[in-house]
Amino acid sequence: MPADALDVDLDRIRRRLDDLWAIGSTDRGGVTRLAYSEAENEAFGCLRSELPDAYSVREDAIGNLYATRRPDADRSVYLGSHLDSVYNGGRLDGTLGVVTALEAIEAVHASDRSPAYPPTLAVFRGEESARFGQHTIGSRGALGMLTVEAFSATDGNDVPLWLAMQRAGFQPTNLSEPTLDLDRAAAFLELHIEQGRVLDEADDRVGVVTSIRAPVRYRATVRGADDHSGATPMGLRRDALAAAGEMIARIETIATEAAADGDLVATVGDVTAVGGAINKVCGEVTFPIDVRSTDRAYRDRIEDEIVSALEAIVTGRDLELELEPIDRSEPVALDEGLIGTLDAAAASVGTPSRRLPSGGGHDAMNFQLAGVPTGMVFVPSVDGISHNPRERTPDAAIHDATATLAEGLATIG
Amino acid sequence: MPADALDVDLDRIRRRLDDLWAIGSTDRGGVTRLAYSEAENEAFGCLRSELPDAYSVREDAIGNLYATRRPDADRSVYLGSHLDSVYNGGRLDGTLGVVTALEAIEAVHASDRSPAYPPTLAVFRGEESARFGQHTIGSRGALGMLTVEAFSATDGNDVPLWLAMQRAGFQPTNLSEPTLDLDRAAAFLELHIEQGRVLDEADDRVGVVTSIRAPVRYRATVRGADDHSGATPMGLRRDALAAAGEMIARIETIATEAAADGDLVATVGDVTAVGGAINKVCGEVTFPIDVRSTDRAYRDRIEDEIVSALEAIVTGRDLELELEPIDRSEPVALDEGLIGTLDAAAASVGTPSRRLPSGGGHDAMNFQLAGVPTGMVFVPSVDGISHNPRERTPDAAIHDATATLAEGLATIG
Repeated sequence: MPADALDVDLDRIRRRLDDLWAIGSTDRGGVTRLAYSEAENEAFGCLRSELPDAYSVREDAIGNLYATRRPDADRSVYLGSHLDSVYNGGRLDGTLGVVTALEAIEAVHASDRSPAYPPTLAVFRGEESARFGQHTIGSRGALGMLTVEAFSATDGNDVPLWLAMQRAGFQPTNLSEPTLDLDRAAAFLELHIEQGRVLDEADDRVGVVTSIRAPVRYRATVRGADDHSGATPMGLRRDALAAAGEMIARIETIATEAAADGDLVATVGDVTAVGGAINKVCGEVTFPIDVRSTDRAYRDRIEDEIVSALEAIVTGRDLELELEPIDRSEPVALDEGLIGTLDAAAASVGTPSRRLPSGGGHDAMNFQLAGVPTGMVFVPSVDGISHNPRERTPDAAIHDATATLAEGLATIG
Repeated sequence: MPADALDVDLDRIRRRLDDLWAIGSTDRGGVTRLAYSEAENEAFGCLRSELPDAYSVREDAIGNLYATRRPDADRSVYLGSHLDSVYNGGRLDGTLGVVTALEAIEAVHASDRSPAYPPTLAVFRGEESARFGQHTIGSRGALGMLTVEAFSATDGNDVPLWLAMQRAGFQPTNLSEPTLDLDRAAAFLELHIEQGRVLDEADDRVGVVTSIRAPVRYRATVRGADDHSGATPMGLRRDALAAAGEMIARIETIATEAAADGDLVATVGDVTAVGGAINKVCGEVTFPIDVRSTDRAYRDRIEDEIVSALEAIVTGRDLELELEPIDRSEPVALDEGLIGTLDAAAASVGTPSRRLPSGGGHDAMNFQLAGVPTGMVFVPSVDGISHNPRERTPDAAIHDATATLAEGLATIG
């Protein structure tokens, strides 16, 4: 090993993943560690117990944790992720980013490298929207981005977020103020599973994220008339499900064509035939539409094309279409300098890597939006599986991506 | 009124419909009178109380009711329908056929007409499959067509049909024997709501049913892969819902084209996206397929065309398709002679009428299958609505159809 090599302890990473995997485990083979649940608290306690004594640890007003060997440093590179999960989630989403961040910090500390900005481990609460329908609660709170609306969002038992925070032991106040000193943050880095198939299919071990796709979302409702399936001639039908079928297929076609000319995915991932039955012509169907791109203008253009196509379908069929807007988020381009730094870090580690966009949102995007230069490292999701107990990333990729993260950390400045 | 005119008492029909409408009424505005329920028993009791004293009434081993002024007659025309309903059903399905049959019998009795075959009112149990997933239980039992499988079918509380019959007060034995003397049945007539839009759209008051469309049915399951909607490029997807959308639209197209060349309807009336969500590419979708025709050979041909089209869609997409057969019934052509008789009866009444196929199954089809010459009269369903509290037929159509039924009854022979 060269003198300046960064030594990543894969066994330690695996052991810490094992410890966290035992917290909130379900009888369906996964873990449920919801935002501000006891299981999330327990995971934070577990992580805290892993920190060397030399760390200075600070918990903010909403339960995020910051830990550093150098609390005295004027500026610091923050790195980390989250410890909560979806219902019956997997071993790696969020957790891997926390464990590998700690490992990267320790690897740099154990080397003879002297990073320009001493690192701070950042562990966030409630990144998943599973409990409150609100994503990245902890990092938004840390950055002063948490709205009153988000703070008042309720879970399935009508418990509002602010009350859940209190019950978990925190006393949030003045949420429009960051809980983190933004001037101190020289950069933010996050390692995360890809949650898609790109790296796995390409046999790359490391992905350098260029940007974060953001969705525009609708709930579509198609209304026609319920009829008897045997007694209603084809020409007298106002079949909402046949129309929805045509729409769903058309959205896929538009998106596939659009993906040839720019960054674009569009998806109908669910459908409900209201009062549907084998012996009925179905009179009402609803389905969600999710259109994402790293390019806002291109997404707008394809969104218009999809809406026009759906309207043409209902017009031709004498049906009604309602499109309820439910989300319109801004794509985030990550820091150009850090993309180059992480590219170079992967090359230095000698691991196969590629640049790619992120399809999902992450804590990292909030840092970039807050003006902190931000970079992300992806590891492959085997078969693209995430939010599922079958989440898996090969050890070699975890090793190389952690080494890439450490190398990036040591290089920034 | 000419001396041989048949006087239909519309007020009496409406009053009897009102009385039956009060039995099993729900807080959702309809009635629930399931097969072998207390409500069905109560409806039979109500109907029995309406019968003039001169009627000889017989209840068979499974609760069907036969009532006639002429039990001595060697042969009889049977006419009637059922009194059970679907969950939260309407005012007319089945019930109208019973009430108008009694009215037609009384109209002929009150006239100076002497039908060749004295009529017998026939009221059947459990025509709807809502409770046991078994249709036309009573008439199949009456005709010795009830299989052991049907007899053992269970309801949502795991109560088998045979036990439900016992609890309702009946002691069925040897169900492969008819409970009705088939040699005595000279013909069977049934009046029913159309349950489709044909008569309503055409402004006809009476339909003469030529045949009964029978379904071939499948449950289709399309399997691909669950993926993250934002993170999975269009080219790497195995999207079961987009494929299902294409299939559902394709089935409609095939059926619409086929309907131009023969009797054919095909319907996908429901769909389930297994584990579907707004942020997922959906990996598994199921939907039922219902293909009906009065022409078995034509239906077979279109069925083949549909199956081939679906298989081509999954092959092109690298998905899997499972087609589970769940029904394959025989279309029934009704008696040519009776079709002519009922056509002439409608003309004699002077009401606008047309021939049409029945899209749904009815007690009548079992009589034709058992070799009893069978005819059916339809009345319009306003907006094609059935199995719904909003079932409605204009009074004028009820009047004219009852008169047509009476005229047919008086003429047969």
